[in-house]
Amino acid sequence: MNTSNLPQSMTNRNYAIIGTGAIGGFYGGKLQKAGTEVHFLLNTDYEYVRDNGLLISSTDGDFNLEKVNAYNQVQEMPPCDVVVVALKTTQNHLLPQLLPPLLKDNTIIVLLQNGLGSEDYIAEFLPNHPIIGGLCFICAYKVKPGHISHLDYGTITLAEYSANGQPAGITENMRLIAGDFAAAKIPIILNEDLILTRWKKLVWNVPYNGLSVILNAQTSELMANPHTRHLAEDLMREVVAGAAACGRIISEDFIAKMLDHTEKMKPYLTSMKLDGDRGNPLEVEAILGNPLRIAKLAGVDLPRMWMLYQQLKFIDAQNTQLQ
Amino acid sequence: MNTSNLPQSMTNRNYAIIGTGAIGGFYGGKLQKAGTEVHFLLNTDYEYVRDNGLLISSTDGDFNLEKVNAYNQVQEMPPCDVVVVALKTTQNHLLPQLLPPLLKDNTIIVLLQNGLGSEDYIAEFLPNHPIIGGLCFICAYKVKPGHISHLDYGTITLAEYSANGQPAGITENMRLIAGDFAAAKIPIILNEDLILTRWKKLVWNVPYNGLSVILNAQTSELMANPHTRHLAEDLMREVVAGAAACGRIISEDFIAKMLDHTEKMKPYLTSMKLDGDRGNPLEVEAILGNPLRIAKLAGVDLPRMWMLYQQLKFIDAQNTQLQ
Repeated sequence: MNTSNLPQSMTNRNYAIIGTGAIGGFYGGKLQKAGTEVHFLLNTDYEYVRDNGLLISSTDGDFNLEKVNAYNQVQEMPPCDVVVVALKTTQNHLLPQLLPPLLKDNTIIVLLQNGLGSEDYIAEFLPNHPIIGGLCFICAYKVKPGHISHLDYGTITLAEYSANGQPAGITENMRLIAGDFAAAKIPIILNEDLILTRWKKLVWNVPYNGLSVILNAQTSELMANPHTRHLAEDLMREVVAGAAACGRIISEDFIAKMLDHTEKMKPYLTSMKLDGDRGNPLEVEAILGNPLRIAKLAGVDLPRMWMLYQQLKFIDAQNTQLQ
Repeated sequence: MNTSNLPQSMTNRNYAIIGTGAIGGFYGGKLQKAGTEVHFLLNTDYEYVRDNGLLISSTDGDFNLEKVNAYNQVQEMPPCDVVVVALKTTQNHLLPQLLPPLLKDNTIIVLLQNGLGSEDYIAEFLPNHPIIGGLCFICAYKVKPGHISHLDYGTITLAEYSANGQPAGITENMRLIAGDFAAAKIPIILNEDLILTRWKKLVWNVPYNGLSVILNAQTSELMANPHTRHLAEDLMREVVAGAAACGRIISEDFIAKMLDHTEKMKPYLTSMKLDGDRGNPLEVEAILGNPLRIAKLAGVDLPRMWMLYQQLKFIDAQNTQLQ
């Protein structure tokens, strides 16, 4: 290794990646490629990645990491400055066991997850660590063990959790993470208000993730049929009403923009549809259950979202039974 | 034929059966077996039934009609005293052509169909004929051309249409039809109020027909999962609200009875599920679209039913495209 060629982005902060699937493998791989010290937690792919490293096929350029720090137990990993949680939210019940061994006093926890409620959940058992929510706008999937394919997009929006529910603003922790990620050629946007940011993502995720599973459809099919296009819009309005119940205002323009954007997208299988097709648990609670319960506590009824939740819980139970 | 053995039920009224599927074949077959003059309109099965008659496998006892009056054009059929419409509602657009050639001055039209709105539709172009709605509570299906299998139940509830939307009461026309059907061993219940009767049937049909298609499920599966059981109840409440918008009161007890009844039923594939599985058009407008539009005119919003309608319209369009 020619140290004189080390990327300028090399940081003193080391990173743990909890969950090395498409998201964890891609972003963790980019960080390591940029010279960051990264430790990857794996499960089923542990032995393969320990022996063969990671291969990232990407529209930004393919790259191969012949050697990575691979683990199948957190107890063997070093405490890290930043812990990136890239598990599906359906595995969040594992976090009270997985996180504590990785923590230093000032470890920053970054959650690259969908939906609502994960930061609150972690803050319950780790109240003294900064928690940053990361919303990934990316098309990527795991081709096979150790091989991630990145198809499109890749921007992460970061916003910090605050215990009082008020916007945390642009914090120093967010700037540190943004610096490391940006140096690894990962486009980063910083946002003052985690709750608003998460609700805005739900404006897209609720209708398209949910309906793509229930109706076995791609986004393009949902948009081409006038009835489901209308239903998607109805559902978006309910998400906006849920956000309003939390004091977050999302404009009418934003709905129009999401519909227009989705209409112009290439046909797209949502992450929940991919999970369902693979027989994996669906992220129903993060994307629907938690937002619904929060809105209900605020006195707002969202009947279409409840119905979508009930339908998805049925499909999820059927999928799980089949295994 | 030994005329001294003719059943006592033999009537002077002759019957036309429009649509000789499971419903038309079973009930028309029972009428003919009891000695009634019956004329059957067929489409794809015409030649087979003309040459081979009808075979009815029934829990009430199998029977074979070696010779039936089979037609594939209404122009060749005689005008009849009673015309029984046993088409799926998705074919009702054919009725303005099919019905007029069969009518005498006082011909009674009996609609053995699901959902809401068919009587109004016929009254628009045949305002001077009595129209009786018939709600069939039956499990029956067509095994193959000329062969109907009757698995369970069989009662028909009759109620007469009135142009002013008020209950027609128990009319003389209803008694005549009831007499002919009862003599053919078809259990008949007469009801004063067609609109109330049709809304009550929708309390069952809306959740179970709709959800069985959307979630690819039997009634037993929908009832076993707490989320879809709750959703079925939510949908029933919306149907009751729709009925109330039409001035028809359905009691809370009725919902409890329907849920309890469905829980105790054998696993059941609804008629809409069977239609969907066969790639036939779904009766979305009769079972959801028309009730929704009627409720909307009365100023009542039924969001879950609209969502179910939108989802079914998507599935229906996908099914049709595949053909």
